[in-house]
Amino acid sequence: MTPLKTSTGRRPVVLIIGAGFGGLFAARSLAGTAVDVILIDRHNYHTFTPLLYQVATAGLDPSHIAYPVRAIFRRDKNVRFLMGEVEAIDTAAREVTVRANGDAHRLQYDALIAAAGSVTHYFGLEQTARHAFGLKELSEAVILRNHILKQFEQAAWSDDPAYREASTTLVVVGGGPTGIETAGALLELSRHVLQNEFTGATGSLRPRVILVEASDRLLASYPVRLQEAARRQLQSLGVEVILGEPVEQADGERLLLKGGQIIPTRTVIWSAGVRASPLAAMLGVPLTPAGRVPVRPTLEVAGLPDVYAVGDMAYVQDGQGDRYPMNIPVAEQQGTLAARNILRRLASRPQESFRYHDRGIMATIGRQRAVAWLYNRVPLSGYPAWLTWLVMHLLWLMGFRNRISVLVNWVWNYLTYDRSARIILEHGGLRRRAEHDALLPPERTVAPEHELEIARR
Amino acid sequence: MTPLKTSTGRRPVVLIIGAGFGGLFAARSLAGTAVDVILIDRHNYHTFTPLLYQVATAGLDPSHIAYPVRAIFRRDKNVRFLMGEVEAIDTAAREVTVRANGDAHRLQYDALIAAAGSVTHYFGLEQTARHAFGLKELSEAVILRNHILKQFEQAAWSDDPAYREASTTLVVVGGGPTGIETAGALLELSRHVLQNEFTGATGSLRPRVILVEASDRLLASYPVRLQEAARRQLQSLGVEVILGEPVEQADGERLLLKGGQIIPTRTVIWSAGVRASPLAAMLGVPLTPAGRVPVRPTLEVAGLPDVYAVGDMAYVQDGQGDRYPMNIPVAEQQGTLAARNILRRLASRPQESFRYHDRGIMATIGRQRAVAWLYNRVPLSGYPAWLTWLVMHLLWLMGFRNRISVLVNWVWNYLTYDRSARIILEHGGLRRRAEHDALLPPERTVAPEHELEIARR
Repeated sequence: MTPLKTSTGRRPVVLIIGAGFGGLFAARSLAGTAVDVILIDRHNYHTFTPLLYQVATAGLDPSHIAYPVRAIFRRDKNVRFLMGEVEAIDTAAREVTVRANGDAHRLQYDALIAAAGSVTHYFGLEQTARHAFGLKELSEAVILRNHILKQFEQAAWSDDPAYREASTTLVVVGGGPTGIETAGALLELSRHVLQNEFTGATGSLRPRVILVEASDRLLASYPVRLQEAARRQLQSLGVEVILGEPVEQADGERLLLKGGQIIPTRTVIWSAGVRASPLAAMLGVPLTPAGRVPVRPTLEVAGLPDVYAVGDMAYVQDGQGDRYPMNIPVAEQQGTLAARNILRRLASRPQESFRYHDRGIMATIGRQRAVAWLYNRVPLSGYPAWLTWLVMHLLWLMGFRNRISVLVNWVWNYLTYDRSARIILEHGGLRRRAEHDALLPPERTVAPEHELEIARR
Repeated sequence: MTPLKTSTGRRPVVLIIGAGFGGLFAARSLAGTAVDVILIDRHNYHTFTPLLYQVATAGLDPSHIAYPVRAIFRRDKNVRFLMGEVEAIDTAAREVTVRANGDAHRLQYDALIAAAGSVTHYFGLEQTARHAFGLKELSEAVILRNHILKQFEQAAWSDDPAYREASTTLVVVGGGPTGIETAGALLELSRHVLQNEFTGATGSLRPRVILVEASDRLLASYPVRLQEAARRQLQSLGVEVILGEPVEQADGERLLLKGGQIIPTRTVIWSAGVRASPLAAMLGVPLTPAGRVPVRPTLEVAGLPDVYAVGDMAYVQDGQGDRYPMNIPVAEQQGTLAARNILRRLASRPQESFRYHDRGIMATIGRQRAVAWLYNRVPLSGYPAWLTWLVMHLLWLMGFRNRISVLVNWVWNYLTYDRSARIILEHGGLRRRAEHDALLPPERTVAPEHELEIARR
């Protein structure tokens, strides 16, 4: 319980890695206090991950669920944001190396909060990892949206029923909340929006959405009654639910299940598991099988007194068998506690232990379909659960403008079955159009009298 | 004036290349008539190009100005959209080759409307073409937005004043409407939004926006009084205006002007010229110096009786010295006329000649700043011109939802000086996160009693 070193003789520096929910809440708790906060993230925005699947299914724009970190801390003089990728952590020298502008920058800290979150876990299925789509990052949501829309556009060219079936069969692996929400949204996009627009000379398309779960029930952490309600609601929407079937492999053209079933599809969305961010390994301590950093109940990393880990990255060993889910409320509450424990240490006061205040869990399935398990006591399903989900998420979303915009989108989508964000926007290949234009064929030329080359509107 | 051949014995097929304003208005005019329309575009959306600069400056989301083509023609049974890249046009065989799904598809037509628009023209400045940013496509707007925001994030790491100056100096080349609007929006983004968020330990940034024009006046097609008003309004906003200075070269680190002046900048936006789409060359007829297709006043391509060209691609030779600007109203009116002339020919009625109904021109400069030249008679500048611009563009935007969304954004941006869309969203390098995760360092492992690897919220 040594006080923090203030190496420069100035205010102690708290370095936070990750601007997800854990890092954000830590930085907020430290805003306006007597420390200097440096917040690092690979992106210049915080991602509201619970709605990633709505970006992937063209219901929301990326910026609806991404909020610039600098805007969040605009008025907090002691919080400094820097965009960059952490390359190394030297806990002995209290130094983090961050790559930005192509250079490696070394940053000193007095206390470190590691809050880098989690990544998709494919459980060693390497081929599947190459061909399936993850849904943990904003860029992945846009990539998936582009991919799905392109599948339908390509199907419109084809007279081959097998090709068209593989193009318009969308499979979600994993029956947790993310898998369920994604499957429901995919059904609504493909059946209520795209199917109507792809009639014509090629014949109509018959999109299918299939949810595959390895265990014999959906939503493992919910009571059985709500698990059943979720399955019924998914099926009433039109989603085909396959239970008790682990995935053998996906190869980009078909999905093979352990039981032998083969589903022709080019779109497999992997929501079956997560593991801690690879950044956890940079701390140099032994990790759990899912790559998480074992921490004390005070969220200190064992053996590293100035380092805290929070959120999906952290595994709390409290000796009582308690396990906290890798979810947002845990990350938020842990981020807040880590910040407070650092301030307590500065004031030579004792560290506090983490206690999770669980307000319950909920998942939406589609219009007027949802399940909720409030305070782990009140079960809701159908319309009441859906309304609760809607209001909670609107209140939760950061920033007034985003909330209004999202509301406008949701009301519009609800009334019209429209998905205005369904644009295929790619900019990976050509840096700009000029590179394409450089490949023009030579032209024969005839000169008219006068010609305005300047663009005018 | 031969009637169209209906090769299959079915309804005549009108093939339209390009879903810009020309192609869209042509397809709309043919919707519900006795022809089958095939509309081809590289993208699955129509781009509302007048607001591209607002996406590039983080004021609007991409989907605000992009509307799925299939949604536009959802109710028109005789209009079929296909996404693909045109590779070849065989006017003798009446056949267009389109690449999609990696295959080349050949489409027969009875009449063809070429409406592929224009691309950025660098007038042979090859190095500049590689380093400057064009602003003709939605992907270019997103690339430019990402680039500008990254420049500021990188400047935040640097203690070198020269590096920071080059990062935060934004130069627009070309004093036409696009250049002026872009310069004004860049000034508002960099000075009113970003500058406030980049204070801190590195010292504050001093963004500059410079507009460079080769001739000695802005807005060549406006009356002198409005040219002067535009310059004054830009300067009152804070934009540095350099007139009479052609560009020598941009190399990615600095911009060199013909007069010898060197501006250190990594951000040069090229709005100085456009040329016809390279697709024009596929018609196999002699083109104008700017690559445009010479057409008769009826919009028929000389020597190709079943081919029409409209919009930026087309150069109308009417023998009276009339030159139509490369702008949206001309494209819309020509698209409509080409469609009508095809229907007239089918009915063995005479072709009509193009006459441009000019309702005037306008350009916005920033909040409460604009110039307008209504019906080439009524000059407006300042607040009245800005209000006119605002109302006209809201009415003009396609689709109810986009209009509401854009309005919400504009009101919010106006009241708060906020730019919520300022996220750096790239997905070019890694196809998905898994490819990154595959590069993880090996981990040491310690097994805790129980661990949930399934994502739960």
